[in-house]
Amino acid sequence: MADEVVLLDFWASPFGMRVRVALAEKGIINYERKEEDLKNKSPLLLRMNPVHKKIPVLIHNGKPISESLIILQYIEDVWNHTNPLLPSHPYQRAQARFWAHYVDTKIVNILEKISKGKGEEREVAKKELIEALKLLEEELGDKTYFGGENIGFVDIALVPFYPWIKSFANFVTLNIDGECPKLIAWGKRCLQKESVAMSLPGEQVINEFTKKIFSIE
Amino acid sequence: MADEVVLLDFWASPFGMRVRVALAEKGIINYERKEEDLKNKSPLLLRMNPVHKKIPVLIHNGKPISESLIILQYIEDVWNHTNPLLPSHPYQRAQARFWAHYVDTKIVNILEKISKGKGEEREVAKKELIEALKLLEEELGDKTYFGGENIGFVDIALVPFYPWIKSFANFVTLNIDGECPKLIAWGKRCLQKESVAMSLPGEQVINEFTKKIFSIE
Repeated sequence: MADEVVLLDFWASPFGMRVRVALAEKGIINYERKEEDLKNKSPLLLRMNPVHKKIPVLIHNGKPISESLIILQYIEDVWNHTNPLLPSHPYQRAQARFWAHYVDTKIVNILEKISKGKGEEREVAKKELIEALKLLEEELGDKTYFGGENIGFVDIALVPFYPWIKSFANFVTLNIDGECPKLIAWGKRCLQKESVAMSLPGEQVINEFTKKIFSIE
Repeated sequence: MADEVVLLDFWASPFGMRVRVALAEKGIINYERKEEDLKNKSPLLLRMNPVHKKIPVLIHNGKPISESLIILQYIEDVWNHTNPLLPSHPYQRAQARFWAHYVDTKIVNILEKISKGKGEEREVAKKELIEALKLLEEELGDKTYFGGENIGFVDIALVPFYPWIKSFANFVTLNIDGECPKLIAWGKRCLQKESVAMSLPGEQVINEFTKKIFSIE
């Protein structure tokens, strides 16, 4: 029986993008991607993720999996014969999970503070973002990707936020290019990968979206 | 070479308890447990977890792993020959990760709101706790443990919060015994397991601690 793969998704969601990149890395291209209207969620989404009612949800042969990092681990567990997303050594696996979790808690939280915060609060969050990204830059070091020679768990967790970070930085005047040159170079390298390029919206679209976020003020 | 295992811990931390239970389940008993003074953190803790500066940190043969659920996965990856904490099937693994993550986000968050919230805010949080626990009760169903016949990932993630939930419920008058009888029976069963009993502080000690939390008001 061929695998039936359905992804409940929203085009601008970095969490949805993670799943798209991971599936592409595993060579899963022919799946059904259902775009959700987040203001009017589908009965399918509410049934498949009754606890959080959030996208992304991966439905594999009828069974739903929620929470993007958990979906990534599932994809790794199921399609384990090509392009490993996690290293085989337990310690390196733990490190990859640590930094992916760091993106989910630290980076996501700071980006929210920048987009919603006003005045001084935003200025503090801007400084926090630079510091948080510098830690990622340090972790990246001179490697091509966080995953080493190929993109892996941390790359996939972080890369959907890269265009948003770049775009936010423009709007709130943050010199990320100067402060985190290795991370910027990493982001550019990632965007040249087919799995990433096909899964992320273009720069202009993200800038338009960011403009809306910041013009609500 | 024998494994060198050190745990940077704080006795009252449910996150630290998770690691203690997991190590005990794997038969790792003879390790060094270093009690941290959280108001005056040791240079070792600051060096081993420079990003979050938090316990628990497991130091295995000199290498540090942080974040309790990530430590649990590491323990599972390293000591994989006895007492599996995660099921072998990818879908069941994803479900276990989902509910452990649910404890970390939902339950922990609500307990914080109960302990810190005042008046109406606390009343809302109390209702949220009952609803959140009912979902866990539903997931448990008629199984002995979340992990099935033996305690697993979700049990270990949740059980350290069980005595706190019971104790909080006393202080803020919440009828958890009546609302979630299966979950209460599960907690009692867990506390009879040696791995849990040896890793959690006694009821009276937790009540004293809770009294302090609620008398700060």
